[in-house]
Amino acid sequence: MLDITLLGSGGSMPMPHRFLSSLLISYKGRKILIDCGEGTQVAMRKMNTGFKNIDIICITHLHGDHVFGLPGLISTMRNSERTEKIVIVGPEGTRGVLRDLLSPITYMPFELDIIENPKTPLEIIKSSVGLQFHEYHESENQEIIFSTLALEHSSPCLGYSFYLKRKPKFSVEKAELNKVPMEIWGRLQKGETVVYDSVVYEPHMVLGEKRRGIKVSFVSDTRPTEAIPDFIRDSDLFICEGTYGDDMDSEKAQRNRHMTFKEAAMLAKDGEVRELLLTHFSPSMDKPEMYRQNAAEIFADVIIGYDGYMKTISFKDE
Amino acid sequence: MLDITLLGSGGSMPMPHRFLSSLLISYKGRKILIDCGEGTQVAMRKMNTGFKNIDIICITHLHGDHVFGLPGLISTMRNSERTEKIVIVGPEGTRGVLRDLLSPITYMPFELDIIENPKTPLEIIKSSVGLQFHEYHESENQEIIFSTLALEHSSPCLGYSFYLKRKPKFSVEKAELNKVPMEIWGRLQKGETVVYDSVVYEPHMVLGEKRRGIKVSFVSDTRPTEAIPDFIRDSDLFICEGTYGDDMDSEKAQRNRHMTFKEAAMLAKDGEVRELLLTHFSPSMDKPEMYRQNAAEIFADVIIGYDGYMKTISFKDE
Repeated sequence: MLDITLLGSGGSMPMPHRFLSSLLISYKGRKILIDCGEGTQVAMRKMNTGFKNIDIICITHLHGDHVFGLPGLISTMRNSERTEKIVIVGPEGTRGVLRDLLSPITYMPFELDIIENPKTPLEIIKSSVGLQFHEYHESENQEIIFSTLALEHSSPCLGYSFYLKRKPKFSVEKAELNKVPMEIWGRLQKGETVVYDSVVYEPHMVLGEKRRGIKVSFVSDTRPTEAIPDFIRDSDLFICEGTYGDDMDSEKAQRNRHMTFKEAAMLAKDGEVRELLLTHFSPSMDKPEMYRQNAAEIFADVIIGYDGYMKTISFKDE
Repeated sequence: MLDITLLGSGGSMPMPHRFLSSLLISYKGRKILIDCGEGTQVAMRKMNTGFKNIDIICITHLHGDHVFGLPGLISTMRNSERTEKIVIVGPEGTRGVLRDLLSPITYMPFELDIIENPKTPLEIIKSSVGLQFHEYHESENQEIIFSTLALEHSSPCLGYSFYLKRKPKFSVEKAELNKVPMEIWGRLQKGETVVYDSVVYEPHMVLGEKRRGIKVSFVSDTRPTEAIPDFIRDSDLFICEGTYGDDMDSEKAQRNRHMTFKEAAMLAKDGEVRELLLTHFSPSMDKPEMYRQNAAEIFADVIIGYDGYMKTISFKDE
């Protein structure tokens, strides 16, 4: 199960009624934050999400409206008695920008680990000190498969995808067929390989068919690209920038390396996602809901984002 | 005439109902901003103050709750078609912190001039390109006398004082007594020295008694110091930190280098100011108004600040 909170749905400038684009993913009581524009910590306070358990911060790109909330958030997190490391992921250049932005902060009670432009998928596992990145390897153990995609904006920009694996069901039939001693069923089910009475038993010997997990993808800020549909394919929730609602703004979208609602909807359709959540609205667009039809004509399951939008995504019974 | 807008009355962390401490002084349509915590630009938008005409930004000190709104504000000001220089004044270290904080901003259509820890008074004059600093010299011309005071906080910190001079009234009696030709009365009144028919005429030859101007002083964050009463003396409005309302918090105030309401009120009394405006409230103090009496017992004309508090200070008829 993943919980999603859209903290802010605005782009460019913070507005009194709309925080800047940022999103929180909660998993087993720990959190991943995507983007952190000015005011993100206020949005968190308003929505009572808490600060303490944010273990990973993903930065899409280094424009101010996506990062200027970091110094304040990190300062406030120092007051939460946190000692666990925080990992910040971002495009090339992230290390330098963070070093500068955070330089006024003299006292730092936790480590900040920075990963620039990871080229291969990673896995995220919940440990006793929170969510942690590990190298990806095919196994029954990993919890979230994390991957990135280079987007096409006016500054290096990354899209993010999170795939929460679902363990196969335990299969008594298979266990019995493979003559697995009942004493070790539980350990095998948890993903351990077990040697028992000098015989090696592997998890697949007690597990049934693969089951679909949960996929959430986040794509902002960018023009549509050919690679996006495959990157977001089958997402349960595809969070995508829709800077402009009006089709009339399509030239502006091209010029500023953004998308219209229609373009985002085309990606959602091509990527065969379950639901599209639009966000990152231009300050000039006061009521994004007015343009819903421009997206819905192409992709029906569209949600026009708003600050405080929340969704729980559970495994589907299959 | 000076217009004062308290943009935010909070210290430490921005809260949903309280922006961080920052204040705007408007003079002849141009503006001076004091401090700029995260969210200051949102407060400005909420209070409809505009961004474009801010010519001077005074930073009291380099703690995050006083500066982390600068990158966002400066970014937004770039969109206001501004081309005039902005002057930022602050304590020693301001240049380095600003260089870091603003480093993600690549395109800057106006110059940023930084003055660190000015040791002598300066004058601020409104010119065609906004408010400008000049070296101070005794004259009838200058408009605002600007001075700073080193405060006593956990980081180098400056108090600010603004004295808007009022020109003496024109005195027909004096002009006639001094045999000043009527043709040059206007120029002398404006402060010019005029040579006419080979005789030198000076402004004082047509001007009456000195008249009291308007003084506004800003003191935050600090412990009370011996120098403060003289620095704030006779202020029409003395804006002062009152981090803690409750006298019970006086030890905490000492430890964190802040003040209680009572300590601020003592300064107001010793400095013989007209009015005290308290601000920079601790996030732990939900209703500062509850502690008004702690200040009022010592200094009656106290205002418990709140976001959006506004005051126009005019010259008094004497």
